[in-house]
Amino acid sequence: MRELLRAGCAVFGGITGPAPEVGTLDEADLGAACWIQLDVTDDASLAAGIEAARPEVVYHLAGQSSVAGSFSDPLGTWDVNATGTLRLLSALRGGGCGEARVLLVSSAEVYGAVPEGEQPIREVRPLHPASPYAASKAAAEMAALQSGESGGPGVVIARSFNHTGPGHDPRFALPSFAHQLAGIRAGRGEPVLRVGNLSVRRDILDVRDVVRAYRCLAERGEPGTVYNVCSGEAHELQGMVEQLIELSGTGARIEVDAERFRPVDLPLLVGDGHRVRALGWTPEIPLRQTLADLLEGAERR
Amino acid sequence: MRELLRAGCAVFGGITGPAPEVGTLDEADLGAACWIQLDVTDDASLAAGIEAARPEVVYHLAGQSSVAGSFSDPLGTWDVNATGTLRLLSALRGGGCGEARVLLVSSAEVYGAVPEGEQPIREVRPLHPASPYAASKAAAEMAALQSGESGGPGVVIARSFNHTGPGHDPRFALPSFAHQLAGIRAGRGEPVLRVGNLSVRRDILDVRDVVRAYRCLAERGEPGTVYNVCSGEAHELQGMVEQLIELSGTGARIEVDAERFRPVDLPLLVGDGHRVRALGWTPEIPLRQTLADLLEGAERR
Repeated sequence: MRELLRAGCAVFGGITGPAPEVGTLDEADLGAACWIQLDVTDDASLAAGIEAARPEVVYHLAGQSSVAGSFSDPLGTWDVNATGTLRLLSALRGGGCGEARVLLVSSAEVYGAVPEGEQPIREVRPLHPASPYAASKAAAEMAALQSGESGGPGVVIARSFNHTGPGHDPRFALPSFAHQLAGIRAGRGEPVLRVGNLSVRRDILDVRDVVRAYRCLAERGEPGTVYNVCSGEAHELQGMVEQLIELSGTGARIEVDAERFRPVDLPLLVGDGHRVRALGWTPEIPLRQTLADLLEGAERR
Repeated sequence: MRELLRAGCAVFGGITGPAPEVGTLDEADLGAACWIQLDVTDDASLAAGIEAARPEVVYHLAGQSSVAGSFSDPLGTWDVNATGTLRLLSALRGGGCGEARVLLVSSAEVYGAVPEGEQPIREVRPLHPASPYAASKAAAEMAALQSGESGGPGVVIARSFNHTGPGHDPRFALPSFAHQLAGIRAGRGEPVLRVGNLSVRRDILDVRDVVRAYRCLAERGEPGTVYNVCSGEAHELQGMVEQLIELSGTGARIEVDAERFRPVDLPLLVGDGHRVRALGWTPEIPLRQTLADLLEGAERR
């Protein structure tokens, strides 16, 4: 949102609860944004929100974003992520915004467990979702690909690989570690960092680079086309955790907690990013900077 | 259903209305089948039906099956075909039938408009649904592929290409032509056959061969795998209509009716059937026999 406000766009932020307080947005940015109630599970809410905003471009990120949480509520996850996407696209068409450009933010999780020899993963690979979250995102893609074929908005699909940065929800792995380390540095509790499976390797980007990719795709992507949003490089979570500990200066000890393991986890996930790079986007923020900023963000909370 | 009853299986037929009268089933078959109320849009109905049947194998064909009808009700089609599949799989798991084998009947429509040079279509091709019906089936596949990954039933997916035969709903093209010709032969109306776009070419099978393929897939297919169900050969609709007219002996004249055209239609749709043939299935009924039986079935109505 900050990216678009600073580019001079009129931005309407769809929310389902009270307007956000200062968090990742500066006060000035918050003042410029217009918050509207928008619930993708409710047709009336969608119609009213679209009527209010009359969008030319829609960044569709509304979703239940926790892979772990999707196992306990597959149908709820599906309703928001998959059916919610179809409802949004139908409402745009029905509300006279069939010409809008839509970016659907999907996820690399849709590929499922891909053998290491078949990575980096290209967009043409058949999908094989391994979690209810991944299935819901893959289904949303199907609604999105079809939309432009029958008078609905054309949709560009971003398949995002892992990313993090300041403001990232501490239910996710790296921000959870940053918060624990910030707590340790502030003198709360033992110098012990509790972690899950650290052997996974991930293609990880800074969220600020990802945001620039989304804007690039919304403005220059081909509707009906899928783009991986990724760095093309894999980093082991173990090494990232060690860097975080080093940056924190706490010398914390790592303790593995089996309860933090996911029911299904993918050992390696790295993408082929040639398609999005061909549109002119390239990542700019080095991983160490991202980790340092993540830690600093956690300390300011 | 007849195929399974004659093989000595105990068959439960899920229906949403009154039990079927004699139609495509013989009286003896109808007596042996057990009809249960089963609505894939209703969790309570699913739980009760699964409790009653305790299935070991599930043939999942419940769906809104009209491509044309899906354009006027995309959300309703999605609710039955896509979300209905997820509800069924969740109910099987929740009802203690997570070990059941499930066959999901999907559709070649999920591939969308494929350039002629890229046909026959292989199962690994990226999906690009062109109708709301196709999007709903593609989404159902995503739920099905994921099911076996987290304790739900393993699902074999059949991507059926066009098929027809006695008993086929006359809202579809070939049975509609057969019904018109039967009416003409019975002396009702002018000898004029009203048709839509006859230039399309389709990979067409007899429904009885398709049923045998479904049984083969349910029994021997690999869960989490997709199989085209197709002949591998394309036939132009024009030629099939001419054969039907010849078989009818009516000498009816063809009249093209623009209202019978679909909003989106695919000029060619032919599949690569090597995967299902590798399981031992092969089509047995020649096209001319199918057309003759279709006509005979229309006359008996």
